[in-house]
Amino acid sequence: MNYDAIFQSAIDRLHEEGRYRVFIDILRTKGQYPNARCFGGNGPKPITVWCSNDYLGMGQHPDVIAAMEAALHDVGAGSGGTRNIGGNTHFHIQLEAELADLHHKEAALLFTSGYVSNEAALSTLGKLLPGCVIFSDELNHASMIAGIKNSGCEKRVFKHNDLDHLEQLLREEDPETPKLIAFESVYSMDGDIAPIAAICDLADKYNALTYLDEVHAVGMYGARGGGISERDGVAQRVTLIEGTLGKAFGVMGGYVTASRMIIDCIRSYAPGFIFTTSLSPVLVAGALASVRHLKVSAAEREAQQQSAAMLKEKFGEAGLPLMPSVTHIVPLLVGCPVKAKRISDILLAEYGFYVQPINFPTVPRGTERLRFTPGPHHRADMMDSLTAALVEIWSRQEIRLAA
Amino acid sequence: MNYDAIFQSAIDRLHEEGRYRVFIDILRTKGQYPNARCFGGNGPKPITVWCSNDYLGMGQHPDVIAAMEAALHDVGAGSGGTRNIGGNTHFHIQLEAELADLHHKEAALLFTSGYVSNEAALSTLGKLLPGCVIFSDELNHASMIAGIKNSGCEKRVFKHNDLDHLEQLLREEDPETPKLIAFESVYSMDGDIAPIAAICDLADKYNALTYLDEVHAVGMYGARGGGISERDGVAQRVTLIEGTLGKAFGVMGGYVTASRMIIDCIRSYAPGFIFTTSLSPVLVAGALASVRHLKVSAAEREAQQQSAAMLKEKFGEAGLPLMPSVTHIVPLLVGCPVKAKRISDILLAEYGFYVQPINFPTVPRGTERLRFTPGPHHRADMMDSLTAALVEIWSRQEIRLAA
Repeated sequence: MNYDAIFQSAIDRLHEEGRYRVFIDILRTKGQYPNARCFGGNGPKPITVWCSNDYLGMGQHPDVIAAMEAALHDVGAGSGGTRNIGGNTHFHIQLEAELADLHHKEAALLFTSGYVSNEAALSTLGKLLPGCVIFSDELNHASMIAGIKNSGCEKRVFKHNDLDHLEQLLREEDPETPKLIAFESVYSMDGDIAPIAAICDLADKYNALTYLDEVHAVGMYGARGGGISERDGVAQRVTLIEGTLGKAFGVMGGYVTASRMIIDCIRSYAPGFIFTTSLSPVLVAGALASVRHLKVSAAEREAQQQSAAMLKEKFGEAGLPLMPSVTHIVPLLVGCPVKAKRISDILLAEYGFYVQPINFPTVPRGTERLRFTPGPHHRADMMDSLTAALVEIWSRQEIRLAA
Repeated sequence: MNYDAIFQSAIDRLHEEGRYRVFIDILRTKGQYPNARCFGGNGPKPITVWCSNDYLGMGQHPDVIAAMEAALHDVGAGSGGTRNIGGNTHFHIQLEAELADLHHKEAALLFTSGYVSNEAALSTLGKLLPGCVIFSDELNHASMIAGIKNSGCEKRVFKHNDLDHLEQLLREEDPETPKLIAFESVYSMDGDIAPIAAICDLADKYNALTYLDEVHAVGMYGARGGGISERDGVAQRVTLIEGTLGKAFGVMGGYVTASRMIIDCIRSYAPGFIFTTSLSPVLVAGALASVRHLKVSAAEREAQQQSAAMLKEKFGEAGLPLMPSVTHIVPLLVGCPVKAKRISDILLAEYGFYVQPINFPTVPRGTERLRFTPGPHHRADMMDSLTAALVEIWSRQEIRLAA
């Protein structure tokens, strides 16, 4: 038994497929974001970040920074324990109340990440409902897939945002079988949006629960940043809404909101919640400030939507292979992992623009892409430079001729 | 299908068994820890925390606070992305190098929590090794059990710290079968220690890999805080060492250290690593300061060991039901969830001492306990008051006569 040979072959496979990941070593520059410093080679080099999920720049908002600094000096660095054993701070209680209110739910529960919130909540709900069948959109995030798998439930995968297919699958099950429909509002790699109201109609018709991942929409859509479900006025119809504090809210952590009883069940039964040190109170204080700010300020959301529309327009006019997106996500199709990485490498090395290539398993093979997330702080002249750089790179012989 | 009735019955079961968890709402007071404020009722009330896993008080150490404040103002709140997509900061790179060095390994990988590091690393290793059998100590933490389960591997559970039983199970497998022995150094609820060197001997004999969870030992044992494996001089013999930044290091997050190749495999294949926003650079900067400090300062470790020895002595002299522990963990056996919670409630309400009851599923039924973690900042007079309070409560008729 040669363990090293097995591990080496696992790495070799990634190199052969051109999808071995190289992490770009950066530090953002607070107050000058999207500018950052890129490390490696001859010391830090200035770059512009085009692929952050800190969509609104809240990670450097003065209210967020001030709240985190105050918490750091008031209570210290970490929570020191699980929520049950010494790690339940007053900040956690306050943020959960704020999030429940944001989504018009009775209660909320914080997790260390959005990934953990999906894994823990879906697996726990599935285990508590005997014989439950989970209906899952084919493009659901890896964390939802993990949660569904770990629930042990039967899974029915419906075609992406396809109501007819979903209804067909629902109709095939026994009316007495517990059912849960799991889907996202904004699909983050394509930028399309689920028909939430119509899915809730089907859930009503077939007596199913609904589980909605809003991680790419919270803070971004709706009058108070409650996501697509708020924008569409259907938050109360969804059984459970899951979100993140690490994207538009600019900090870190995940959460679910639902009825008091469902939240109490997840709180009491989910190993991924019970057996882990709670979020640092410093992060929780920052997220609380961010959520509160975005509940009353729409300026960041509006500026971000304008930036996204402007970049799409510039890409489209330049003839770049823009993928259809009705949201803030701006993807360019490349269709080959080697080529996607090469374009990204040239963009960073020669132009100082950082956008990560998105390869399998994050997106299906053959749909490799560059995914841009312009924010309120990306100016028109920056977009012009980026567009010109991409046009120049795309015209190079090595890119035109690449597989 | 009445969903509410199912969820209600799940909650009812917890109440019936006396193990419904009530989170105590607190804020620690930096600079005065273990003093804290307890919320609820008539506003904040001063309490003393006796159950924190911030064992050394590093969560309020000036170096840690200063590093976090500097990072907050330099780069902002969150990382804004996964490690692969914009969330790989220079702090992450530096901390991974520091942790690899701490454990005499080639490389390290950060996770959002120790739970996720165990789940992601064990499940990924198991999936990469075809037909692997995992040998698991019966008292392994829930996160290791989750990782082993999600690996899809065959599992052999060996009796706690029982070398004969482990060898018997190893001997029964085909020599060509990949094998992984997963265990902890310090078992956090009992306070006993694994025979690491002897387990490595067995691993050598049967050509097995070893996976060691040191979450309750890092920062606490060994000349540089490298854990029991450093104290025993066997770090290099263990294949993979897993640790946390959320206990003795006082911040938040988890990690694994191993050969460069194994770390590269986990980095490249683990969904729980790939698909999640990376740790906030603020936390990483704090953890970096904490690890560096505890590499060169033994004062906190020594003071903590003295505190633990002193509290054990006082409990023993007072005739309290001290469980055997050779570490910094000081457990008192209660053996009933209702009684454990009642003692804890009285202690908090009447004396202002906070220690959480530890019930199933954290410990086996019938071994419910109170678990004290005295640190460098718990003084002798505080221990005298605590001991006297416990003696008084234990003598009460309602406790003596409880089931």
